[in-house]
Amino acid sequence: MLEMLKKFTVDDAFLGRFRRLVTESVIPYQEKALRDEIPGAAPSHAIENFRLAAEYLETGSCSGEFYGYVFQDTDLAKWIEAAAYSLIASPDADLERRVDEAIDLVGRAQWPDGYLNTYFTVKSPKERWTNLQEAHELYTAGHMMEAAVAYAISTGKTKLLDIMMKMTENIYRHFIVEKAPGFPGHPEVELALLKMYELTGEAKCLELAEHFINVRGVDRDYFKKETAIRPGKVWGMDPEDRAYAQCDVPVRDFTVAEGHAVRAVYLYTAMAELARRSGEKELTDACVRVWNNIVQKQMYVTGGIGSSCAGEAFSVDYNLPNDIAYSETCAAIGLVFFARRMAELFHKGEYGDVMEQALYNTVLAGMELDGQRFFYVNPLEVVPGVAGIVPANRDELPLRPKWYGCACCPPNLARTLTSLSCYAWEENETTVWNHLFIGGKLDLTDTKGVTVDVATGYPVQGNVKYTFHPVGEKAGFTFAVRVPAWCEHAKVLYNGERLYRRAPGEETTLNTRFEDGFAYITADFKEGDTVELVLDLQPRRIFANTRVAANSGCVAFAYGPMVYCAEGVDNHNEILSLRAGKSLEPTMVPITEGVLNGMLRMDVPGYRLESDATLYSARRPRAVPYTVRMIPYHAWANRGENEMRVWLPEL
Amino acid sequence: MLEMLKKFTVDDAFLGRFRRLVTESVIPYQEKALRDEIPGAAPSHAIENFRLAAEYLETGSCSGEFYGYVFQDTDLAKWIEAAAYSLIASPDADLERRVDEAIDLVGRAQWPDGYLNTYFTVKSPKERWTNLQEAHELYTAGHMMEAAVAYAISTGKTKLLDIMMKMTENIYRHFIVEKAPGFPGHPEVELALLKMYELTGEAKCLELAEHFINVRGVDRDYFKKETAIRPGKVWGMDPEDRAYAQCDVPVRDFTVAEGHAVRAVYLYTAMAELARRSGEKELTDACVRVWNNIVQKQMYVTGGIGSSCAGEAFSVDYNLPNDIAYSETCAAIGLVFFARRMAELFHKGEYGDVMEQALYNTVLAGMELDGQRFFYVNPLEVVPGVAGIVPANRDELPLRPKWYGCACCPPNLARTLTSLSCYAWEENETTVWNHLFIGGKLDLTDTKGVTVDVATGYPVQGNVKYTFHPVGEKAGFTFAVRVPAWCEHAKVLYNGERLYRRAPGEETTLNTRFEDGFAYITADFKEGDTVELVLDLQPRRIFANTRVAANSGCVAFAYGPMVYCAEGVDNHNEILSLRAGKSLEPTMVPITEGVLNGMLRMDVPGYRLESDATLYSARRPRAVPYTVRMIPYHAWANRGENEMRVWLPEL
Repeated sequence: MLEMLKKFTVDDAFLGRFRRLVTESVIPYQEKALRDEIPGAAPSHAIENFRLAAEYLETGSCSGEFYGYVFQDTDLAKWIEAAAYSLIASPDADLERRVDEAIDLVGRAQWPDGYLNTYFTVKSPKERWTNLQEAHELYTAGHMMEAAVAYAISTGKTKLLDIMMKMTENIYRHFIVEKAPGFPGHPEVELALLKMYELTGEAKCLELAEHFINVRGVDRDYFKKETAIRPGKVWGMDPEDRAYAQCDVPVRDFTVAEGHAVRAVYLYTAMAELARRSGEKELTDACVRVWNNIVQKQMYVTGGIGSSCAGEAFSVDYNLPNDIAYSETCAAIGLVFFARRMAELFHKGEYGDVMEQALYNTVLAGMELDGQRFFYVNPLEVVPGVAGIVPANRDELPLRPKWYGCACCPPNLARTLTSLSCYAWEENETTVWNHLFIGGKLDLTDTKGVTVDVATGYPVQGNVKYTFHPVGEKAGFTFAVRVPAWCEHAKVLYNGERLYRRAPGEETTLNTRFEDGFAYITADFKEGDTVELVLDLQPRRIFANTRVAANSGCVAFAYGPMVYCAEGVDNHNEILSLRAGKSLEPTMVPITEGVLNGMLRMDVPGYRLESDATLYSARRPRAVPYTVRMIPYHAWANRGENEMRVWLPEL
Repeated sequence: MLEMLKKFTVDDAFLGRFRRLVTESVIPYQEKALRDEIPGAAPSHAIENFRLAAEYLETGSCSGEFYGYVFQDTDLAKWIEAAAYSLIASPDADLERRVDEAIDLVGRAQWPDGYLNTYFTVKSPKERWTNLQEAHELYTAGHMMEAAVAYAISTGKTKLLDIMMKMTENIYRHFIVEKAPGFPGHPEVELALLKMYELTGEAKCLELAEHFINVRGVDRDYFKKETAIRPGKVWGMDPEDRAYAQCDVPVRDFTVAEGHAVRAVYLYTAMAELARRSGEKELTDACVRVWNNIVQKQMYVTGGIGSSCAGEAFSVDYNLPNDIAYSETCAAIGLVFFARRMAELFHKGEYGDVMEQALYNTVLAGMELDGQRFFYVNPLEVVPGVAGIVPANRDELPLRPKWYGCACCPPNLARTLTSLSCYAWEENETTVWNHLFIGGKLDLTDTKGVTVDVATGYPVQGNVKYTFHPVGEKAGFTFAVRVPAWCEHAKVLYNGERLYRRAPGEETTLNTRFEDGFAYITADFKEGDTVELVLDLQPRRIFANTRVAANSGCVAFAYGPMVYCAEGVDNHNEILSLRAGKSLEPTMVPITEGVLNGMLRMDVPGYRLESDATLYSARRPRAVPYTVRMIPYHAWANRGENEMRVWLPEL
């Protein structure tokens, strides 16, 4: 999938805004944070940690102390990764020079034996690999590997890749050659190693990723044994909480999604990628089981996952509270990662459906529309005075904070929003799949002898037009377009000829088929040929399974992939008294001013309830007709603190 | 009010069951627990702590160590109090002898200067009064005072009363004579001292109660100062969390109910009693403000209070989640205490309304119908697999546990259910008020020259019949019967003559009036005269203020004072898919077998929703007509673990 980073150039009206914010605002801010140049903010110290590690290796002593989280190195890694992606679309010689300098510093902080980690180098060089549960050592390595891969693809420069291959050799020696037991407390290195493998073809990367996946949970007591003998501790985590760290059973025995949501989906991502490469049924089946558990029983309608604030974790089936939702931004991003690998494994549209559900709702909600503030936690109901204040609701902030000491979600957003090309597209020898509808230019000159222009107003509009420009006279291959399951009346046109979806018997002169959520068009594409996907973007009602206690009697609204929410600022600040009507259809209204300019508002005919002023009353609240104004969920909390609800009770 | 303990003998079909359980099961169990005679249970050690304290005072050393909570003495105090009340209705010479023995032991554990507290006596005799915030020293004294008062009234024996008067003198010397600063971290001694005053007329008791109320929150930093210099610590509580301990402002400046709910209502109880005695407007107004805040903004429909699990505390206005409700049994009991004093202060029916709302719902729910198991926490929605398991719902157990290490709620239930006489009745020179409708015999021979038989099937039936038996030819006084606000069609009859409620202009030959929720009948009552209250007990719908987010779109059902709930065991274990219909009226059906035998079931015409098996669907769940079977809330969780809901979404 990584090759798509350079093959597809995003030029998208809707997502362009977010990409630009990342390039123009988030990445520069992130860099300042790394360099401790933001007045008033908690220092990151990430660059300084690398400087100290280099100093230690070069002089044998340090002039300062390590500062920050045990995984502080990942602040730099994620910045390099985001900067690398950003440089593909927005070349910036000065930024590239500064990244090169940072990479030089990383190189200086690497031990001669390849080991790289400033926490252990500066703080306790003898304690390498003694605390896999807590110390995020492999996690940190994984993020730097992802950065290395991204930067190599983006710039062709392989210095960081070489550094991380040396680190991979170091890890390989320790865990494979010297047979050290254990596996990472926070999965990440597995998916990173598989990216290294994809780019370099280096067998040790694949073997190491496979090793960590294979040994996980086999010795259920590994963390317990480690805790008993390790010299230091980081947080004092419970080594018996195996579900939290996805090691209660071997991965092939997974039946449900459990534990810390980000750890879980990072692991599942690697499992799916490995299963695709190996074709192993047992691992594939495990991926399907956890996927199905997530999307059929543990996912918010916004594509958010990990409903439990305690442990930022998956909960039990159907436990999806709206007001005390955790639904971490990074977990939704991880779900995109997982979905992308599942899409490639199975070529079913449902994976792309979920990918865009997470992307256009929870992932985008993670960032303020000015690119300056970020949500970790993405509740589906907010009541000012309760959210962020009442102990049970303490995590659910009503407004995005500026940055975080634990800077995990903002950089994750930055790297995801700048690398959408590889989530949107997939290619093999015969076929090109389009998973996400993003405007831009697809250059398949090398492989299919064609470029494809993609023009779309998605997700605000429902048309996606692909125009083919073969290098030669024609280009013969199969072009597969996802047809979202949520769209009841979708059309696919080839040069204006209709290919109706869900009419598999209906033949055309083309070799076409509709299968598992994709329209496959096999043709000799000639200059100017077009494929068009026409999605009927009507406002949609969504009903939850009755087992979701929090949504009893409620309905959610969506338009295309975007789930909508009602905010107080549009509704006289009384969201809790609003009810959605059952019969009349909502209408879409363009927003033409303010920070939401260009989006579509949804006007839902409904009611405003006037209850007695008392806490309880024998009188049923009087229902007054009222049009509930709703906006895309991702855009909530951009106009000050106010009430918000995704699920509205129906009347 | 205490005089009513002996003046009114309960003989009530409904509450008799609970009283009997207390006498026959709870009090004996409690005694065994005190003596550490329950195999497998965590030891109470309460008796042993007193033995050790006595040993220390008699020999100068201890043969063992203090064990248990810092307030472990209250286990014994609450048992004595409950036993005392129980002995009034159910004389038991053997039990009385054992209480006397326990009191003898308490006496031996008292210092010559009157000080009594086994924690400090055994553990750190030099640290008396050094940790008012955490050590519950005055709280513990308060409970023993309440026991002393109860036992003196019940048996006429004053040994414990004398002991506690000596302790009062000790407290008085320390805080009044020697002007020691500070006030109790857990209010209780204030209401206990006022009971001591009521019984003995001893001015120091009143003065001391007033002192603790007056100084509270005046020095906002008292606990901070104390923490800085105290020699020991108990829990390490935050001395800056003033709202938790109701000392952020002086009590007369209270505007809302805040902090630990039991502490709060115990304090408000004393404030209301003191305000009544002093007639002070400022204190009275503060009581009204916190009362109104509780019942108008922070009380569950079950009369439960303190919705926040964190700190067992009040939350913010309208924050009344059903599934993560705390609603501690003891807090509902405390609300009964507070309501009773407010009733005497204002003679408004609303206080009795709330008293019975708390009593017949949350208080009674605290005890299993076999008297063996108890709830601390009383949620209004329970989903098995979530309740008691998912971290956010960990406190909301789906079944009552057997006993608790912190044995606070069960003994509190025991003493409350055996002392209902003084909550039911009130008397002054001219008038007798009936706040709660409980069958039995009221003996006012000494004061009004009359006895009154009360016959009722309340709350299962709605008639309450009072038959007057004057000692002489007639007895002239005013008899006041509360007419519950929830009853739309109530009648009051005097010797069969109707006195319609809410028709103040309608005169009769009697001197009657309806005022503030009471029917006042002033008459010369003759032998056989009757007053009848006829309450039309129709199933009622209750709607919450729209600002209660958790109840959006929902309705609750009640019958008389009893709120109803739907349990899975009666509804094919699918409560979450049930909806209450809007139009058809519920019907009441007698339950004739099983553990709920004798109660009334409520059959609510409604629907069962059949949703798609998927988590989300575009299809509105199909509504199939279904009769929802509901039972009184207090009786939930008596038939195994299953789903439960009080608030049902309407369809």
